[in-house]
Amino acid sequence: MGKTTILIASAFVWPYMHNPKGRSKKTGLPPGTLIHVGIARTEKARVSVIDYDTERLLEKELVDVTECIDLRDRPTVTWVNVDGIHDTALLQKIGDCFGLHPLLLEDIANTGQRPKLEEFEGHVYIVIKALVWDDAADRVIEEQISIVLGPNYVLSFQERAGDPFDPIRERIRTNKGRIRKMGSDYLCHSLIDITVDRYFDIVEKIGDHIERLENTLVNNPTPKVLHRINVLKNEMTSVRRSVWPLRDVLSQMQRSDNEFVKEETRLYFRDAYDHTVQIIETVETYRDILAGMLDIYLSSVSNRLNEVMKFLAIVTTVFMPLTLLTGIYGMNFRFMPGLNDPEGFWIILAIMVAVAVGMIAYFKQKKWW
Amino acid sequence: MGKTTILIASAFVWPYMHNPKGRSKKTGLPPGTLIHVGIARTEKARVSVIDYDTERLLEKELVDVTECIDLRDRPTVTWVNVDGIHDTALLQKIGDCFGLHPLLLEDIANTGQRPKLEEFEGHVYIVIKALVWDDAADRVIEEQISIVLGPNYVLSFQERAGDPFDPIRERIRTNKGRIRKMGSDYLCHSLIDITVDRYFDIVEKIGDHIERLENTLVNNPTPKVLHRINVLKNEMTSVRRSVWPLRDVLSQMQRSDNEFVKEETRLYFRDAYDHTVQIIETVETYRDILAGMLDIYLSSVSNRLNEVMKFLAIVTTVFMPLTLLTGIYGMNFRFMPGLNDPEGFWIILAIMVAVAVGMIAYFKQKKWW
Amino acid sequence: MGKTTILIASAFVWPYMHNPKGRSKKTGLPPGTLIHVGIARTEKARVSVIDYDTERLLEKELVDVTECIDLRDRPTVTWVNVDGIHDTALLQKIGDCFGLHPLLLEDIANTGQRPKLEEFEGHVYIVIKALVWDDAADRVIEEQISIVLGPNYVLSFQERAGDPFDPIRERIRTNKGRIRKMGSDYLCHSLIDITVDRYFDIVEKIGDHIERLENTLVNNPTPKVLHRINVLKNEMTSVRRSVWPLRDVLSQMQRSDNEFVKEETRLYFRDAYDHTVQIIETVETYRDILAGMLDIYLSSVSNRLNEVMKFLAIVTTVFMPLTLLTGIYGMNFRFMPGLNDPEGFWIILAIMVAVAVGMIAYFKQKKWW
Amino acid sequence: MGKTTILIASAFVWPYMHNPKGRSKKTGLPPGTLIHVGIARTEKARVSVIDYDTERLLEKELVDVTECIDLRDRPTVTWVNVDGIHDTALLQKIGDCFGLHPLLLEDIANTGQRPKLEEFEGHVYIVIKALVWDDAADRVIEEQISIVLGPNYVLSFQERAGDPFDPIRERIRTNKGRIRKMGSDYLCHSLIDITVDRYFDIVEKIGDHIERLENTLVNNPTPKVLHRINVLKNEMTSVRRSVWPLRDVLSQMQRSDNEFVKEETRLYFRDAYDHTVQIIETVETYRDILAGMLDIYLSSVSNRLNEVMKFLAIVTTVFMPLTLLTGIYGMNFRFMPGLNDPEGFWIILAIMVAVAVGMIAYFKQKKWW
Amino acid sequence: MGKTTILIASAFVWPYMHNPKGRSKKTGLPPGTLIHVGIARTEKARVSVIDYDTERLLEKELVDVTECIDLRDRPTVTWVNVDGIHDTALLQKIGDCFGLHPLLLEDIANTGQRPKLEEFEGHVYIVIKALVWDDAADRVIEEQISIVLGPNYVLSFQERAGDPFDPIRERIRTNKGRIRKMGSDYLCHSLIDITVDRYFDIVEKIGDHIERLENTLVNNPTPKVLHRINVLKNEMTSVRRSVWPLRDVLSQMQRSDNEFVKEETRLYFRDAYDHTVQIIETVETYRDILAGMLDIYLSSVSNRLNEVMKFLAIVTTVFMPLTLLTGIYGMNFRFMPGLNDPEGFWIILAIMVAVAVGMIAYFKQKKWW
Repeated sequence: MGKTTILIASAFVWPYMHNPKGRSKKTGLPPGTLIHVGIARTEKARVSVIDYDTERLLEKELVDVTECIDLRDRPTVTWVNVDGIHDTALLQKIGDCFGLHPLLLEDIANTGQRPKLEEFEGHVYIVIKALVWDDAADRVIEEQISIVLGPNYVLSFQERAGDPFDPIRERIRTNKGRIRKMGSDYLCHSLIDITVDRYFDIVEKIGDHIERLENTLVNNPTPKVLHRINVLKNEMTSVRRSVWPLRDVLSQMQRSDNEFVKEETRLYFRDAYDHTVQIIETVETYRDILAGMLDIYLSSVSNRLNEVMKFLAIVTTVFMPLTLLTGIYGMNFRFMPGLNDPEGFWIILAIMVAVAVGMIAYFKQKKWW
Repeated sequence: MGKTTILIASAFVWPYMHNPKGRSKKTGLPPGTLIHVGIARTEKARVSVIDYDTERLLEKELVDVTECIDLRDRPTVTWVNVDGIHDTALLQKIGDCFGLHPLLLEDIANTGQRPKLEEFEGHVYIVIKALVWDDAADRVIEEQISIVLGPNYVLSFQERAGDPFDPIRERIRTNKGRIRKMGSDYLCHSLIDITVDRYFDIVEKIGDHIERLENTLVNNPTPKVLHRINVLKNEMTSVRRSVWPLRDVLSQMQRSDNEFVKEETRLYFRDAYDHTVQIIETVETYRDILAGMLDIYLSSVSNRLNEVMKFLAIVTTVFMPLTLLTGIYGMNFRFMPGLNDPEGFWIILAIMVAVAVGMIAYFKQKKWW
Repeated sequence: MGKTTILIASAFVWPYMHNPKGRSKKTGLPPGTLIHVGIARTEKARVSVIDYDTERLLEKELVDVTECIDLRDRPTVTWVNVDGIHDTALLQKIGDCFGLHPLLLEDIANTGQRPKLEEFEGHVYIVIKALVWDDAADRVIEEQISIVLGPNYVLSFQERAGDPFDPIRERIRTNKGRIRKMGSDYLCHSLIDITVDRYFDIVEKIGDHIERLENTLVNNPTPKVLHRINVLKNEMTSVRRSVWPLRDVLSQMQRSDNEFVKEETRLYFRDAYDHTVQIIETVETYRDILAGMLDIYLSSVSNRLNEVMKFLAIVTTVFMPLTLLTGIYGMNFRFMPGLNDPEGFWIILAIMVAVAVGMIAYFKQKKWW
Repeated sequence: MGKTTILIASAFVWPYMHNPKGRSKKTGLPPGTLIHVGIARTEKARVSVIDYDTERLLEKELVDVTECIDLRDRPTVTWVNVDGIHDTALLQKIGDCFGLHPLLLEDIANTGQRPKLEEFEGHVYIVIKALVWDDAADRVIEEQISIVLGPNYVLSFQERAGDPFDPIRERIRTNKGRIRKMGSDYLCHSLIDITVDRYFDIVEKIGDHIERLENTLVNNPTPKVLHRINVLKNEMTSVRRSVWPLRDVLSQMQRSDNEFVKEETRLYFRDAYDHTVQIIETVETYRDILAGMLDIYLSSVSNRLNEVMKFLAIVTTVFMPLTLLTGIYGMNFRFMPGLNDPEGFWIILAIMVAVAVGMIAYFKQKKWW
Repeated sequence: MGKTTILIASAFVWPYMHNPKGRSKKTGLPPGTLIHVGIARTEKARVSVIDYDTERLLEKELVDVTECIDLRDRPTVTWVNVDGIHDTALLQKIGDCFGLHPLLLEDIANTGQRPKLEEFEGHVYIVIKALVWDDAADRVIEEQISIVLGPNYVLSFQERAGDPFDPIRERIRTNKGRIRKMGSDYLCHSLIDITVDRYFDIVEKIGDHIERLENTLVNNPTPKVLHRINVLKNEMTSVRRSVWPLRDVLSQMQRSDNEFVKEETRLYFRDAYDHTVQIIETVETYRDILAGMLDIYLSSVSNRLNEVMKFLAIVTTVFMPLTLLTGIYGMNFRFMPGLNDPEGFWIILAIMVAVAVGMIAYFKQKKWW
């Protein structure tokens, strides 16, 4: 029982991860105040920049953020990636560099955002959620990724150092695919696309868990199974909460009146949009399956009760008449038939066996046994 | 049991708080009749006024409401705050001062409004609900706040004296943030924004309660837990009922055809709108979790029943054969095998122990024990 | 049980009230045939008329309906109120007077309408439902009110004599409020507004019933409670069925392209619209609460079962070992330890007490008792 | 049990009636292939025609379908009614006569259509479902009626000979109502209107069944009741499936851009539309009531179980201590108090009565009895 | 029990069929990378081509794909059918031939698509799902069919060799119906139409299974029935997931702004659209029926429990008093009435029979038996 307790507790703790509690420290402050809301971090924030066009490629790590003013003004595509959003001073500097609105900066620092797209003067602000499967805790972890898409630059902000975008960097370096030939909108698409691809991995992982759970459900329907069903349902909700608004974001990106996305890139956003729809559909299917499993669980509990009760009824019904028989011949009347008969005992025993066999046959026929 | 009864009763009483019963006294009266609907109050209503622009600042408490006619006509931003809406005579005077429609005044005095935005000639009327956590009663309390936004004035009406807007007053006094530089629309935004910020606190508080409930749910699933789940569900409904229509209000405020909100302030209303969406999402997640907890509660009740029944079945099944054996040797037949054998008693006892052990082994193997 | 039976039966009878059964007698008749569908009435129908403008006021009861042709053509506002719609000949005469379409007349006579607004050439036809709490039967009774709004006249049709509109008549007579200064559209609003006001009374009444039910639910969860929950749910459905379409009607009345409602009156319809939204919200809240009460009821039934079973298990478990002990010493072996010991009986009794106390301690510790 | 089995089986068979199984024989055939899908019929199809205007009236049965070409071209309204759609050769001839599209003819012959309106060049095709209460099987039977509305003709196709339209024929013959004065659109309306009127009869019938079921539900909640609830729910679904799309059809008919319906007839279609909305609302109400009845049924099963268990617990608890007492005095100790006392037996009996009475008093006080 | 386990396991495995797991191998690759996602196949892909107009017909199997460039440029309708999409090199060649976008090719190779329609420069891409009933596994199997519709060509891609389109080929060869007279849009319609026709077969098959299940449900409600209900529900979900988006595709095809579909063909797409609506409706009806069956199943489990408990209560209640009686006369008091009476034994037996009969009569009267 001890193990189950811990598991259940952990199962319910996770949603608070996604709704970080620090939000309340902002109550009463004027809008646009730059405060980090999320899990406190101590490591140093890192800023790396890649600047490229079809021919040239520049890649370096920035120590002083103002260096990128220079890159910003060149026609090449500039991608500034920030690992760690707890360093609000750094965010402020980048914001000054690229002319970001205080409200936008505030949102980057607050990890409680939901996926959204907001248009500002000269750039678009996109929030998406990266999902990672934490093998240790056996659950989904959510990370907020902010993307600012300008005419010839992309800024990306991650909660902590990690390598989710490494395949894209690799593609840029090796000039694989069309990424070097296209603009900042395609780079922005690539960042979102790779995040959506990871959703498929998560969904497959959850699918595996459901499959494993099914076998347990049939062979050993313990309360732990119910708890696992609930945990998986919550995980599904978590994925859904990340994907649904992302779908809207992608739908806005492919709309023809979006000035930041070129005609040729629109097709790629439509493709990513399609992927989110596929994920949503799979999530809904899994939710249906989990609901069905809940039904089966509850009904198997009832069935077990039925079986126990049938067993009790059979035992009681078989033994009660036998006990009554012994009771009758245990009475102290002087005159009872057969008392002194040497065969009496054996005759009664034979009758008892006959009664017992008859009862059992009756239950067999009623299919209780 | 006594305690539970009281708790459950109190849990269900609260919704009537939000739908004040006095409403029926208005039946049959012509529309626009000024009657206070809500909890009767005796303290005196207070009117305070702040008048400011970038350079000047005037703050005082009004004794005679007509004083503000003067301020109204100056280009500075005038904020009139009224604590206590039960003084209908005072409301009428203010209404005359600022040319408020009788229907608008009627709505201010009636605390049964839901959040809404209504446009009138020359001003906009906004109703929002402030939520406060009442630690004594351990539940959410709702207060109606009415805001009238004119070209260069804001009127705010609260049910009773309190300091929800003190941080804003402080910002105006200390000239912190951009509040002194912007118009009445930004002041109106600040009033709403601080109210929405408080929703986050409430939601976090409810989240804490859910978390605490989860532990109890697992360790001790009493009917009290079921009751608490219901109370929290009702609290969630309460928050939801305040936030959903507020979202619509904020959506109307940021629409481009709203003449009372300047272009630059629109962004701030979009920000507040986003916050309401976040709150709605958290509320929905909590409702899902509570529904899952209800499932677990109900199923744990069933499981307990199963356990009790298994226990009963085991006890019955172990003792019935033993009792039968004693019954057999309690019969008064003269000739029974072993009756006179000095070891007879011990042999039977040994058989009984063997039967009992066999039964228990059988149940162990069936995993009933 | 007898009482419950009657109650449940009556609880389910009411919906047929709202869907009068006589409808089938119209099958096969051409549309526009004037047939009264509803509860048969014998009392005589009454026609009263009030004709007013800012200065003059004429009030009388009509014997001959054609008298009102005269009033119809004057610029004053003419309000013709008909109590009793079973007199189809009378309806036909009024219809001829004001040029009403046969389909409109048919709808007035058929009480199975749902609230709606229909535009005809030169007038608007509005159906609303008045709700009255019948204290005798302890339930909501529905009455159909038809209103025809013309440029300078209002016709209102009620199912039977009653005084729902008396406060309005009083206001006209005493020239209270703005009713005498405004046109037929404001009169029409007043009729609807007072009906909506009465909904608040009904909803408060149902709220009281729910509150009372809650106490019973906790103290004595009998099947009667379940039945009451169902009755109240049905009452709520009834109110909802009247309010939802009324909301649409009021929304159509305040639309700017409605030529029968003047600009200044539109605000009043918006106010009434708001009230319907408030009622809908309260109804939804009550439905949620009732659903929660159903959960609590069902779970308390399960809990009772659990308690009974625990009790049975305890009793069985305590007595079975004791009975076995007596059985053992009831066996007729010649040689049993202690049989001839004068203390033997008391030693066994002591053992039995010890076993019983041990069992009970065990259950106490398992918190079954 | 035998009876129930048959009833349940029949209850579930019906939906296949509405989704005729023969559909699969069309798989792979080109669209427009004329194949009858539905219940096979052997009787001969009948074609009757009525041709009328305000003054003239011609009514006859057609042997050769080509006769109607003549009537088609006259300005009078021509109504061709076909009883029996299994005669595909006949359908083909009529189709050739009136220039019907192969897809339209295919739909007429296939009874698996859902109500719909399709516009073709020069005519409109309408499918509706007639509902008839089959008293023998105690359930709703569905029949497909196809209507083709042309500028001056109406074709109606029924599955088999019957008289649903006789009242209309009668009205035409006797020149009652406005039918002779109006065009083919009004005739089409009449056909639909009389079908909708019949829905009211069906709904009333089902209402009667629900009412009867309620009484049984309270007095004798057997599984048969559950089955009846399910059957009625399915019937409601059946009605709903016929009415919902019909509502859309009628909504399309009254739209101002429908060229086949004249301005004056539009009002009548609005009236029929209203009726469908009323039916839908009644159906929804009945579904709610049935859902409530299901709750009551399930809970009354639980209550019965509770009662049985309480009874068992009482019996066990009363008899076990008594049996123990007899067991104690059935032990074979030589020295037991009172054994030789002539009053001993009676004293023990008195103690036993006292224990039994005490137990029962205890249960009475716990309100278990 | 062993059999059930296997069945349940297989029941839950199927959804992964539709959401092929290989998707994750695409994570991180640039969009447009051609990778086959689905069940690995080893057989060789086949390309067959039919080229026709009203007069000519050419049919052959292609070895070298570039042969079709020739056909593509002729005004005749060219239908290229590819069996086997795992050969990505082949897909690439065809793509080059007809100028297909890399994203389009990627979607063809990835069997995890949902039905959709995407417009590209010069052609339309349609994904649909063919459903086949796998008799061996007793379940629905899904196959992805991609169709590219150009001005005078149709490309169709199937997952593996099969003959779903054979009837169409036959119609083209024999010049049956209008297929040879019409363009590529009609051919495209035929491909979709025959696939939709097959859905009817599947739905009928599932209907048969439901019918068979109903009989079992009544006669023998085992957990296996619950499992079958769940499997069928999942199958329905599967069909629904294929049909719903297909409906949207067909709705887009018949829209007047679709340049690839000619006016005359639009009618045929409307017809196919109608069929999807019919299927959706049947699916919804079946889901309702399955939900009702679940209710009946669960309630029949409860009823069985009730019966078992009643039986147990009856047996206990009948035997306990009898056993008490024997206990009383088994006590060892010297003086008990009738002990020495030769009739004593028989009198007690008579009393016992009387008690038993009385008890049974009592239960009969309470209708427990």
